[in-house]
Amino acid sequence: MSDRTVIALDAMGGDQAPRIVLKGAEKALQRFPQVHFLLVGDEAKVRPLLAKAPRLEQATTVVHTDEMVTGDAKPSAALRSGRRSSMRLAIDAVAEGRAAAAVSAGNTGALMAMAKFVLKTMPGIDRPAIASFFPTMRGESVMLDLGANVECDAENLVQFAIMGDAFARTVLGLTQPTVGLLNVGSEDLKGNDAVRGAAGRLRGASSPINFYGFIEGNDIAGGTVDVVVTDGFTGNVALKTAEGTSKLFSHVLRASLNSSLLSRLGYMLARGAVQRMRERMDPRRYNGAVFLGLNGIVVKSHGSADALGFANAIGVAVDMTLNGILDKIRDELTRLNAAQAMATGPQTAAL
Amino acid sequence: MSDRTVIALDAMGGDQAPRIVLKGAEKALQRFPQVHFLLVGDEAKVRPLLAKAPRLEQATTVVHTDEMVTGDAKPSAALRSGRRSSMRLAIDAVAEGRAAAAVSAGNTGALMAMAKFVLKTMPGIDRPAIASFFPTMRGESVMLDLGANVECDAENLVQFAIMGDAFARTVLGLTQPTVGLLNVGSEDLKGNDAVRGAAGRLRGASSPINFYGFIEGNDIAGGTVDVVVTDGFTGNVALKTAEGTSKLFSHVLRASLNSSLLSRLGYMLARGAVQRMRERMDPRRYNGAVFLGLNGIVVKSHGSADALGFANAIGVAVDMTLNGILDKIRDELTRLNAAQAMATGPQTAAL
Repeated sequence: MSDRTVIALDAMGGDQAPRIVLKGAEKALQRFPQVHFLLVGDEAKVRPLLAKAPRLEQATTVVHTDEMVTGDAKPSAALRSGRRSSMRLAIDAVAEGRAAAAVSAGNTGALMAMAKFVLKTMPGIDRPAIASFFPTMRGESVMLDLGANVECDAENLVQFAIMGDAFARTVLGLTQPTVGLLNVGSEDLKGNDAVRGAAGRLRGASSPINFYGFIEGNDIAGGTVDVVVTDGFTGNVALKTAEGTSKLFSHVLRASLNSSLLSRLGYMLARGAVQRMRERMDPRRYNGAVFLGLNGIVVKSHGSADALGFANAIGVAVDMTLNGILDKIRDELTRLNAAQAMATGPQTAAL
Repeated sequence: MSDRTVIALDAMGGDQAPRIVLKGAEKALQRFPQVHFLLVGDEAKVRPLLAKAPRLEQATTVVHTDEMVTGDAKPSAALRSGRRSSMRLAIDAVAEGRAAAAVSAGNTGALMAMAKFVLKTMPGIDRPAIASFFPTMRGESVMLDLGANVECDAENLVQFAIMGDAFARTVLGLTQPTVGLLNVGSEDLKGNDAVRGAAGRLRGASSPINFYGFIEGNDIAGGTVDVVVTDGFTGNVALKTAEGTSKLFSHVLRASLNSSLLSRLGYMLARGAVQRMRERMDPRRYNGAVFLGLNGIVVKSHGSADALGFANAIGVAVDMTLNGILDKIRDELTRLNAAQAMATGPQTAAL
């Protein structure tokens, strides 16, 4: 019992729930045999699916509810009337210590509102952020915030840097990740007050962060840093711009390869290579956006993720649990505050 | 004399000036035989190059200066001490009516500072914006602001919408371009005060703009709208994120195609197709960022553009001149203000 990792799953969230949730859990169990699932959802719907997956059934406790949050529900409405929903009960399990993490492919806004309300932000963190990783020229990097906070000040960005640093240590296994602040140029004077203020603090001798400095949009896919820090407006636009550009590129490539007999023949021979490229850029590999800064681990899977994608989101939750991300964030906040208190002296530290 | 279009060129701006500037001008002249160039720069350097291009020489008046703005000059310093620089004299030619437009591949910040100082913003426009076009799933679209204004309010965004609309009519030849505001979601309540306020005004019955509503990052390359309006921070990051993603995609594709004998053979057969794709996505095709909102036309070429790229930047300047973009912007501003004055009544219109 003591060695197992319990993950709460919102069985009813996502476009093809609960089928994909169970298929994903089955795949994740192959990779992490020590995981036990709290499967929250409609027992009448999940039991027949579990019956077909005996290994998963053995590793699963079903928590029944016939309520769920719909994809178009407003966060405030979901918070008010979704107290018995599968999403909410999965988060409650984390708050009550019955699960180490919750994973849902449901409504992002509702999930964030419930997670904030139930788990509360960690001491020293003003606002939670959404983080995810993505492919780069040099491997993989992490970006945050991806849309939880449309407006951010310098202090928010510094906290995001700390959370992103801990996330990269935990999930990418880096010992001293580099952190960059997204800006419109690399010179000190570029940008707005928030990024300049955050850079000042992160550059300070007391910062526990390996701060690279300002980076620009092309540095994201370039892999210049391991952690890209930005406000939720810019981060959301950048992430979706990269997705859109990838799609355009695939589309133009496909059209070009189909444009002549010779190129179609070439494409047949090179199909394996094109397939490998698609796999490397496959959004399913990067599924699993993480809510950071709460007293508990919550992972959001894309609503249209397939079983492989959902399994990857579970994998991110397990990695974060096993590597103790919450303690890592707490430790870094303590180091940052202690170092800054020392740097500024006792009179301001007492403020 | 009356039919010719005079374009002032900063002969000394860009990584390989003046050679690329002259090569680009030569190419542009083939497409636009009615153009006459004011070539501003060091006569000792440009004369030998002109001597080798007799057709260009015939269509060119050299304006000598031995001063120039360096690539790393601060805008304020360039403004103060660059009064006899090739960049400044090219802009002066526009202000004094001796040229219809100026094109430079020099320092962007210095060019914007000088253009604002010399040409001033148009009546009804608070701040100039930088616009450019880019490839999409459906052809080409325009985005602005790409970095002139790091912080923007609702009124700035409305003015950008008007300028972007006029630019799309002029350079893309569209009669009623659709305009979208970049945001983190499509629902009315999403985003910050600036985008919500701008959407309210653009949605109004008095708006001369064919306003689509909010769009997200993936809609940029998706070609959902003809004109993407955003603040300079987000626009700059989005543009460079798209560039970085394209590079990553090319890199991964090349690595995949070289990974086996079979795929290398396939690549040889499909090379023409891959080449066509590269051409379609070629940044040189989209060279020429335009400063909108000033009492004159200024086009910025990429500093590392080659002759084809520089020729395209000249082409954008000629298109804007021939299609009277300044008048188009003035007309739309008048229509917007008249309609809104009528809608709000004389008491507020008098304010």
